[in-house]
Amino acid sequence: MINRTKEALTSEKLNYEEAVAETSQQIKQLLKSAPVPIRKMTVHLSAAPGKMIRAKSLLACAMEEADRISPDAVKAAAAVELIHLATLVHDDVIDQADKRRGIKALHQKFGQKYAVLCGDWLLCAALEWVSTMDPDGNDREELSRVLPKYMTAVCLGELRQNQNMHNYRLSERQYFQTIRGKTAALFEACFYGGHLFSREPELYKEIYTEIGNNIGLIFQLADDCADYEFTQKESKKPVLSDCSSGVITLPLIYTLKKDSALKEKIEAGMDPIRLKEAVVASGGLAYTHGKIHRLRRDTARLIRVLDISPKKSALLEQILDRAAGKFQG
Amino acid sequence: MINRTKEALTSEKLNYEEAVAETSQQIKQLLKSAPVPIRKMTVHLSAAPGKMIRAKSLLACAMEEADRISPDAVKAAAAVELIHLATLVHDDVIDQADKRRGIKALHQKFGQKYAVLCGDWLLCAALEWVSTMDPDGNDREELSRVLPKYMTAVCLGELRQNQNMHNYRLSERQYFQTIRGKTAALFEACFYGGHLFSREPELYKEIYTEIGNNIGLIFQLADDCADYEFTQKESKKPVLSDCSSGVITLPLIYTLKKDSALKEKIEAGMDPIRLKEAVVASGGLAYTHGKIHRLRRDTARLIRVLDISPKKSALLEQILDRAAGKFQG
Repeated sequence: MINRTKEALTSEKLNYEEAVAETSQQIKQLLKSAPVPIRKMTVHLSAAPGKMIRAKSLLACAMEEADRISPDAVKAAAAVELIHLATLVHDDVIDQADKRRGIKALHQKFGQKYAVLCGDWLLCAALEWVSTMDPDGNDREELSRVLPKYMTAVCLGELRQNQNMHNYRLSERQYFQTIRGKTAALFEACFYGGHLFSREPELYKEIYTEIGNNIGLIFQLADDCADYEFTQKESKKPVLSDCSSGVITLPLIYTLKKDSALKEKIEAGMDPIRLKEAVVASGGLAYTHGKIHRLRRDTARLIRVLDISPKKSALLEQILDRAAGKFQG
Repeated sequence: MINRTKEALTSEKLNYEEAVAETSQQIKQLLKSAPVPIRKMTVHLSAAPGKMIRAKSLLACAMEEADRISPDAVKAAAAVELIHLATLVHDDVIDQADKRRGIKALHQKFGQKYAVLCGDWLLCAALEWVSTMDPDGNDREELSRVLPKYMTAVCLGELRQNQNMHNYRLSERQYFQTIRGKTAALFEACFYGGHLFSREPELYKEIYTEIGNNIGLIFQLADDCADYEFTQKESKKPVLSDCSSGVITLPLIYTLKKDSALKEKIEAGMDPIRLKEAVVASGGLAYTHGKIHRLRRDTARLIRVLDISPKKSALLEQILDRAAGKFQG
């Protein structure tokens, strides 16, 4: 498989399925061959690879005519997944989470200080990986230029979320400001970055970034609904974890606005199951589903505006569907 | 002062003193005008600006003919100081330090989770700052390409140090491997980066990187001596902190090699003052001073190889002197 990787890295363009497999392989390879001081940790992380929705987004957008994808786009896709992984590792330190992607969180297994350093290393290694892209393309430079901007936006979103823990007066506007950074910024980076490789008209850039931002918002809104919707049996993630840890999301914001007595009850120590019932009864989930529905409709329209191949269009719609997946069940 | 900054950013080249002042101003400005969620923290950090030896190194190396420095070099200098600041913030989380640069450590004032996120933000903001450099120069692209490589080296050095805490069998070779990452990598990045702006012959690149690496090593060796040499009254930093926290440095490595019974005494809980006496008596400090002396002599020779202006040469020698400053007293 190493030979296959080398071959792909040199020049050969790939179809979508090959590009996804190659990205996955590169991530695995990078994690498994990390320098010795970090390797134990990165090998642990490689055991739970994630669904790669960000990488898939970038690759789908990177498709050129005849549905081919450049090897540099594969590198960029691997890099955004590593950046995402870095944020997960630091998030888990911050939230003191026990598990991530079904395995023990890094800080639980190796200690907090190693998790901080491992997150730092992943971030830098991702950028170093971008810097190995073909120097003759303009894409490497542009990607090195825009990635840090999106990464600061992610940090700010995380900061906003932490500052608003247990803030039961959080407005819908503040919530969207938070998730635009925390989640949508990196999705937007993927769509922007993917478009760079596509050789499509420059004027599509704005459309792709808007689609990316919307899909990021949908992804987070669906995730925030799932926290209230599913039983532990149905979900792979811990449920009712947002309200238990003080993260205020849209279903709860809506409910708090409807029920003025709720804030006091929560502060007095309300049972999460009761809170879930209140959120369902108030229509907080239905309201959030409405938001997802409208964003989804608008985004599907934007995809249809693009003059792209049927395959590319179908892939973008599939990614849109997956982002909203938890909503659809 | 903002007007002055704007003017400098556009085109005007600066002399060294102006460039240092401008860098300091840019750092202050970036920290004080950070986005709201992060600003309280960055304003706190701006109260203790540090001595900027890394920025000064970059600026001295960036001097062109007639001793002028390009505004982009100033941006790069500000960026490396922000990267350094990011590593300090994360270091303090990892070491659970109380103070930094004479003021309360960030995690002590704002809590650990904010310190992790603030360090992440500083790192990304530094790279974003680099990306605002003049797109017509080749320097921005090259700097974006090499910085991540040096940053991963810094992370690995930090990891090595942490993995070797209380490792009383640490070899001199392993020690140098650690400090080459932890400290010398960022110094080397400054010398490499500075040279990019200098318009000097390409073949000087290797000489500058070697000078940078050496100065970084000298800086760390001198710092490691100072931990054993000074009384708390004489030093601005906590003394005997390395041995108390389990960081094994060259003076101690030498002493452990000389005195085979020492390891057990330390592990049994030796008083730091007694340990200091043992390090002095064994010649551990003299041995380390010898290393500094030889590195310094070699580096001074390398500086003399460069066909540069007397002013530039004097500045590089000054930086070399300052790096060894704690050794000189």
